[in-house]
Amino acid sequence: MIDVGYPDADYAARIQRAREAMASHGVDALVVSVGRDMPYLLGYEAMPSERLTMAVVRPDDPPVLVVPVLEAPRVDTRGDVFTIDAWAETEDPVAIVAAHTGTARRVAVGSQTWATFLLALQQRVTAPIVDAAPLMRELRMVKDATELGLLRAAGAAVDRVAARLRDMTFSGRSERALAHDIAAMTVEEGHQLATFTIVAAGPNAASPHHEPGDRVVESGDTVVVDFGGRWHGYGSDTTRTFVVGEPDDEIVAAHAVLEEAQRRGVEAVRPGVAASSIDRITREVIEAAGHGDRFIHRTGHGIGLDGHEHPYLVEGDDTALEPGMTFSVEPGIYVPGRWGMRIEDIVAVTADGVESFNDSDRSLVVVA
Amino acid sequence: MIDVGYPDADYAARIQRAREAMASHGVDALVVSVGRDMPYLLGYEAMPSERLTMAVVRPDDPPVLVVPVLEAPRVDTRGDVFTIDAWAETEDPVAIVAAHTGTARRVAVGSQTWATFLLALQQRVTAPIVDAAPLMRELRMVKDATELGLLRAAGAAVDRVAARLRDMTFSGRSERALAHDIAAMTVEEGHQLATFTIVAAGPNAASPHHEPGDRVVESGDTVVVDFGGRWHGYGSDTTRTFVVGEPDDEIVAAHAVLEEAQRRGVEAVRPGVAASSIDRITREVIEAAGHGDRFIHRTGHGIGLDGHEHPYLVEGDDTALEPGMTFSVEPGIYVPGRWGMRIEDIVAVTADGVESFNDSDRSLVVVA
Repeated sequence: MIDVGYPDADYAARIQRAREAMASHGVDALVVSVGRDMPYLLGYEAMPSERLTMAVVRPDDPPVLVVPVLEAPRVDTRGDVFTIDAWAETEDPVAIVAAHTGTARRVAVGSQTWATFLLALQQRVTAPIVDAAPLMRELRMVKDATELGLLRAAGAAVDRVAARLRDMTFSGRSERALAHDIAAMTVEEGHQLATFTIVAAGPNAASPHHEPGDRVVESGDTVVVDFGGRWHGYGSDTTRTFVVGEPDDEIVAAHAVLEEAQRRGVEAVRPGVAASSIDRITREVIEAAGHGDRFIHRTGHGIGLDGHEHPYLVEGDDTALEPGMTFSVEPGIYVPGRWGMRIEDIVAVTADGVESFNDSDRSLVVVA
Repeated sequence: MIDVGYPDADYAARIQRAREAMASHGVDALVVSVGRDMPYLLGYEAMPSERLTMAVVRPDDPPVLVVPVLEAPRVDTRGDVFTIDAWAETEDPVAIVAAHTGTARRVAVGSQTWATFLLALQQRVTAPIVDAAPLMRELRMVKDATELGLLRAAGAAVDRVAARLRDMTFSGRSERALAHDIAAMTVEEGHQLATFTIVAAGPNAASPHHEPGDRVVESGDTVVVDFGGRWHGYGSDTTRTFVVGEPDDEIVAAHAVLEEAQRRGVEAVRPGVAASSIDRITREVIEAAGHGDRFIHRTGHGIGLDGHEHPYLVEGDDTALEPGMTFSVEPGIYVPGRWGMRIEDIVAVTADGVESFNDSDRSLVVVA
């Protein structure tokens, strides 16, 4: 575990909002575990481990954090907004959590809770157990000023890295070595942690989630660089496409289409618009240029404490955008076996439009 | 995702053993997702993501990997031991997985599967769904020669780091800065990834899972350093305790007790002995010296693809040790508000005893 330094926030207010959401969802016990629901509510992140850590939020009493006794000393109760119930190595923590749900008639569990604990809890609790995702999404989707400030700062930091990439020599180096350097720069520019670094060169660029490997970058390659880190718990995520040496006309033309698609997607962001409509806009530009079947993923994803969260810019997600929502706009074009390209910015919905947290040069950058 | 380079292994043989275990557990569909069950069986690790990746193993047909279409290009089917069913962004992957479970009468799911997917699968599948942990544990607990070789190499690498720590200056530096350096050394010595680095100084050393923070190490501090990485998918994990300047008698005496407890625990490892009995042995030494209530955690945990896995050296885990099992032996003594200490080695059960994969100096090391 790296200390990502969750910010001081008004956790008491968040717990109160959670209780209101619980009431509206007909839930009288909210149980969160690994993942980011817990740090959102309590400012503490459970260690992903066979040793269970779970917090139980009920309508009345303060939330209780059930935590392994050996981890209790590392818990900051954020001014006593929650209490601690530490379990010893030979106790059954699921039974302790079940007891804290008390007489609840409907229990919601955090969506990343491990199956092993959920199945055990289902044996212990007679109330139905449902996914907390719809409830937590309502709380987390709209960011407050503190959260927006952290996301903005994280975006500026990856922009500084993107600017440095223009002067880097790509050719002759492996994807893995380049990814290592980019991850180091992500930390140098202020992130506590580099969380992912995709460097996908030549034909590998056609694999959107390519893992950097031994391939050595060569002249003529397009190189997709998609990277980010955590900034006091909040994520950054940006993508730019580079080309080694002068690109041929096909690449130049496709990238111009991609730039237009991404720009028009961002420009369409404003309150009241459906998330899915941004996806439709970028897709229409790419389809009109004849690349429709080469854009094989959604246009974007929300970002905050999780690197991917609601809303999703995809057909079927008709969430009406609201001020304070933050997400990526990242269309791509991929030709299997040959090349790929993607442009990604994180943006926030404002009162009357959009603010981009990334502003590094989006054009196809020619590198050595 | 960092490419941890899962080794070439006989995945077909592992799948066959899984089928035999399924039969003995009365399970006719095994569904694995995030976590290490999937790389154990297929040599591929699911990206932890809202985009579902799941593999379905049935008694007859080849296993099917249900994977997001944009991640399909990165999948290596390991010589076609499994097939791929890629889902597009607007499809419902849980329905696809449910269809692959077919007429199964009892489905087992990997223990780290996200709750959101398990709850959705429970809606889609009429067969009871149980935890795959007991089944997967039987397969993964005893390591083969390839696995033992990787764990041995990983252990030697952290030993090289431990040796370098003796010459490092601790005082005047923050826990966080020291942890950063130790993580870098863990990679320098050959790991693909440093997975955790605990540096806990002075009173923080009494918190076994302390997160390295801003505390500056000062003269007189005991410093617990517990770190490890991933070596082609397999874990390393070792702990040594350092002291800045000459230690006082209380610390010296306690560490001598701890060394004896750890040594006697390791020496007791051999086939047929219960995992819990190793815990009892280390605990008796520490209790006899009057520190019983200061040893607040189990003696150890299995290690392999997961950093913590079965068997656990704890009261209640009476697993009979078998050749090829690998686990930590790591007693500790903790005095809240003052100091803490722990010694940890990874060991393997051999045909007639034990092999330690860590062999750096276990004594209390005086550093500057």
